[in-house]
Amino acid sequence: MGRLKQILIGKPISSADEHHQRLSKKIALPVFASDAISSTAYAVDEIMVVILLQAKVGPTAFRSVFPIAIVVAVLLAIVAMSYRQTIHAYPSGGGAYIVSRENLGEVPSLVAGASLLVDYILTVAVSVAGGVLAIRTAFQLDHSWAVPLCVACVVLMTVVNLRGVKESGAAFAGPTYFYILMVLILIGTGLYRILIQHVGPIPEKILSTDAAELSKQTGSLGLYMLARAFSSGAVALSGVEAISNGVPAFKKPEAKNASTTLTWMATILGGCFLGVAYLASRLRPYRADTDGNGLGLLGEYLFGGRNVLFWMLMIATFAVLILAANTAYADFPRLSSIIARDGFLPRQFFNRGARLVFSNGVLFLAGVATLLIVVFNGDISALIPLYAFGVFTGFTLSQTGMVVHHFKEREPHWQIGAVINAIGALATGAIALIVVVSKFTEGAWIPAALIPIMVLVFKSIGRHYAKSQAAVVAAPDYRAPRETHTMVVLVGGLNKSVLHGLTYAKSLNPDRLMAVTVVSDDEERKELERQWAAYGIDIDLHAVYSPYRELAKPILAFIDELDAEQEGDIITVIIPELVTSWKTQWLHNSSALTLKAKLLYRPHTVVVSVPTHMAETGDITF
Amino acid sequence: MGRLKQILIGKPISSADEHHQRLSKKIALPVFASDAISSTAYAVDEIMVVILLQAKVGPTAFRSVFPIAIVVAVLLAIVAMSYRQTIHAYPSGGGAYIVSRENLGEVPSLVAGASLLVDYILTVAVSVAGGVLAIRTAFQLDHSWAVPLCVACVVLMTVVNLRGVKESGAAFAGPTYFYILMVLILIGTGLYRILIQHVGPIPEKILSTDAAELSKQTGSLGLYMLARAFSSGAVALSGVEAISNGVPAFKKPEAKNASTTLTWMATILGGCFLGVAYLASRLRPYRADTDGNGLGLLGEYLFGGRNVLFWMLMIATFAVLILAANTAYADFPRLSSIIARDGFLPRQFFNRGARLVFSNGVLFLAGVATLLIVVFNGDISALIPLYAFGVFTGFTLSQTGMVVHHFKEREPHWQIGAVINAIGALATGAIALIVVVSKFTEGAWIPAALIPIMVLVFKSIGRHYAKSQAAVVAAPDYRAPRETHTMVVLVGGLNKSVLHGLTYAKSLNPDRLMAVTVVSDDEERKELERQWAAYGIDIDLHAVYSPYRELAKPILAFIDELDAEQEGDIITVIIPELVTSWKTQWLHNSSALTLKAKLLYRPHTVVVSVPTHMAETGDITF
Repeated sequence: MGRLKQILIGKPISSADEHHQRLSKKIALPVFASDAISSTAYAVDEIMVVILLQAKVGPTAFRSVFPIAIVVAVLLAIVAMSYRQTIHAYPSGGGAYIVSRENLGEVPSLVAGASLLVDYILTVAVSVAGGVLAIRTAFQLDHSWAVPLCVACVVLMTVVNLRGVKESGAAFAGPTYFYILMVLILIGTGLYRILIQHVGPIPEKILSTDAAELSKQTGSLGLYMLARAFSSGAVALSGVEAISNGVPAFKKPEAKNASTTLTWMATILGGCFLGVAYLASRLRPYRADTDGNGLGLLGEYLFGGRNVLFWMLMIATFAVLILAANTAYADFPRLSSIIARDGFLPRQFFNRGARLVFSNGVLFLAGVATLLIVVFNGDISALIPLYAFGVFTGFTLSQTGMVVHHFKEREPHWQIGAVINAIGALATGAIALIVVVSKFTEGAWIPAALIPIMVLVFKSIGRHYAKSQAAVVAAPDYRAPRETHTMVVLVGGLNKSVLHGLTYAKSLNPDRLMAVTVVSDDEERKELERQWAAYGIDIDLHAVYSPYRELAKPILAFIDELDAEQEGDIITVIIPELVTSWKTQWLHNSSALTLKAKLLYRPHTVVVSVPTHMAETGDITF
Repeated sequence: MGRLKQILIGKPISSADEHHQRLSKKIALPVFASDAISSTAYAVDEIMVVILLQAKVGPTAFRSVFPIAIVVAVLLAIVAMSYRQTIHAYPSGGGAYIVSRENLGEVPSLVAGASLLVDYILTVAVSVAGGVLAIRTAFQLDHSWAVPLCVACVVLMTVVNLRGVKESGAAFAGPTYFYILMVLILIGTGLYRILIQHVGPIPEKILSTDAAELSKQTGSLGLYMLARAFSSGAVALSGVEAISNGVPAFKKPEAKNASTTLTWMATILGGCFLGVAYLASRLRPYRADTDGNGLGLLGEYLFGGRNVLFWMLMIATFAVLILAANTAYADFPRLSSIIARDGFLPRQFFNRGARLVFSNGVLFLAGVATLLIVVFNGDISALIPLYAFGVFTGFTLSQTGMVVHHFKEREPHWQIGAVINAIGALATGAIALIVVVSKFTEGAWIPAALIPIMVLVFKSIGRHYAKSQAAVVAAPDYRAPRETHTMVVLVGGLNKSVLHGLTYAKSLNPDRLMAVTVVSDDEERKELERQWAAYGIDIDLHAVYSPYRELAKPILAFIDELDAEQEGDIITVIIPELVTSWKTQWLHNSSALTLKAKLLYRPHTVVVSVPTHMAETGDITF
């Protein structure tokens, strides 16, 4: 087991290795922006899916893509400006959870925390589904490949992350810049071919027959459909908050560098998004079966076939989306460990594994993301409605927290900051509302129901930890109420293991010491008593008859009687056990397990397993 | 939990209630024969399935049903005569496992044991599938009802059997005699209508179109097909051995009464089987979709419609098959407990539950039977090929053992007994061979592969138990090698729970006592040392730095060092724990679990959890 774990997970990492290397802006950009920028690979597609699949409209509807994209871009600008405020206010890192906790109180912070956790899980599911879609577009694999490839990616990322990733900037820089470059080449080629060469839309033969038929229809979009399309496009903003969480990782002056990087990121994201949307509105890269990556269709058309440029574009898309998913592998465990440290999640999320990784968080994230991928059949369009609500709830709480922050701090020019954040809060809050209303039945109800439930769970865990912590608080003069000892050794027969248990108990010189055995009849008792004498054991042996042929109940009854005899002592039940190896241990002591479980909840009762070890060879040690 | 268990399982039964009531022959017959006699409900159908589904033959092939049935009946007579010998030789109960163990040795007995366990599991699966088929025939439910109804029956029987069934003879007598009566009425009606009224075969309109088409073909069966059909019919013999297991339950003289009852049973079984086979060969009650009970078709036709008699026949069929399945619920746990007592199965199968039931055996049986039902889609014809091999392997070993027994005992007229058993052994051995060859690809390979694997598992469990038992054997002058104590209390911070742990350790006056804490830096250590002084604790506190931010490794390293310092002492690691309730316990002490698991395998190391109990109210007790 240990070896297998080491092969999969690697050797333990020492804390000393965990040095933080400060990031330059050029490196910080890809590290923090892969999530946000990668959304350009699917956000435009998702706008088109809504427009074309759900409205009986013709090709004129493609014209709506670009205006919708402009609204998204404006929203992006607002959110980016808002987060610049956060960066300056929280140079030590201001995620939505922390900003809400410090400014809005416990419940809002838990809502923000739940939203972000949901958001991170969906980042994995959506990004992996998007990355796999790019690969499937490149290799022309049908939808039956979606789930297996997605699950393979998740498993691979999980193993890599359990090994612990050194967040090496270079590893991030390559794919992200490569992707940005490829998208810019695509947009440049597109603009040239549209504006100079005057190419028309992608011929219908590339599209499926459904889409071809659709193109004969005419009609326009209602406001509701526009809202739905916009809700899908708004997922492009997911990940914009990443930089504000990571300010301390920047080179000095941290806040200024982070804030500049945020501006760069927003500009690149906005530019790529608008560019792709413009190409899409003109070239209509839409397949009615929705099973194909829009960038891929554009690339194939604009680059003149499935050539080197097309393949590079698809590989870059895959790489940046996997990187984006990977950021959630860092963010989810980190946030869940913070929430666990604050006492609202089980401590298991706060314990690090052997390689400094919050292993439980990684495994939980991977498990839920896999579940989502399987349930939604690896279909990105089915996952998108679940995604945006969490993202925008987080934004809203974070920005609202910032407004409160400005009012509390009243730093120079705080009014400007407050206005910016208020606009951000209002805008993102409105979007959250639009998303949940317009996509409710398609899946937005899931996060809308899940987040409150998660908050209730957080609260009840928090209450339990608070209560248990308060219960054990001790003043320096506190003295334990019980100090005398009654020891009971559980005896089955006479062998080395039992003799070790008896010796252990006797050598501790308890105030009272006795052995107890469970027998089904007198004959059994007499035989054991005979042996007891033969072995010359000077400890009282009590025989308990078991009318139920059970161990736990009669022993518990015996202990209850014993307990009643004397006040103020601690009863220690000593169970001699033969310990073999993890392969065969389950063959032993099974009947003692129930007893142990029941004794665990008995006050002033301590259970001690005294192990006798048996090696593979049959040699025993004590 | 306890309450839910009690509602489902009932109150514990005292051993005193477990009085064996001796059975008269009239009651013993239904108690032991329901399994064997119930097979008349499907064995004839299964012969027809093979003949008609797998051979391109016409209605003349139905003529083969009766001759095949006669061969099965002859076989039945041989097996019954053989088992009469067993009854007299083993008046205390002679199952195949015991007879093989006493006469043939360990491996044959394990083969017999494995065969019987497989047999019992299939008894449940096949009988339940057959019972549900009767119900579906009565209520005209399609095949989609099969699995849900079967699983519901298994769940119900499992709950009933976990409650513990008083094997009340009356409960068995009713359905079994009712079934025998209904089958006799059916046969009587059939003979009257065929021989006196000269009715012809069931008109084709009742049959499906496939069967109607089949009826236009002509052709006869090859030898191989006859062997296959016979292999299916031979399952009628399953359960014949039941009486020989239960001799001690009979009124005195036990062996004589049991032997008479066996003759009755064989006569009734043989008579019913031949009667139904004769009706089938004349009336052709066959539906090509195989989804309908042959007795039901015969009943509907002979009784003149779906009237009261038809319904009574179907209900009786269902009842007797469920009873038959229920016998396996007694046999499987009993046999697995005997094998476990002999050390070839985990002891978990030997421990009885609160209601004197071998609960683990019951649950295991139910689990595997359910799996079979689901995998084989509740289809009795798919399960039959798996069934007969185990049955006949058990017969063969049991009869071979009896031959050896006669040679060893040389009781009066032993030669006659030996000849009878030798014929039995040869006949059943030949059938086992025919079954496995003729049905290999349809499923007979499963028991043929499984039984040897089970024997290997039994052997390896047996070796492990033997080795571990030998390792702990102690002479009366054996003395445990270690008697001095080093105690280490694991300390996280200072609270009541930890103070209780320290008090517990100190009051035991070990030879060496110290506390150990894991810290990540000097600051943490100094803070704890400050508190240590403030609380006036006079126990040495050792701080261990955890470079891996882990608990288990540094503590283990600390204990290794400590262990090296002094020879011959036992190291007791005391872990103070807060115990809440089973609902919230998992929120606590998670990081100590890994440590405990690792310490379990460390020699001369004892782990003691000293619990401090917290009530729902937040009050604590120690």
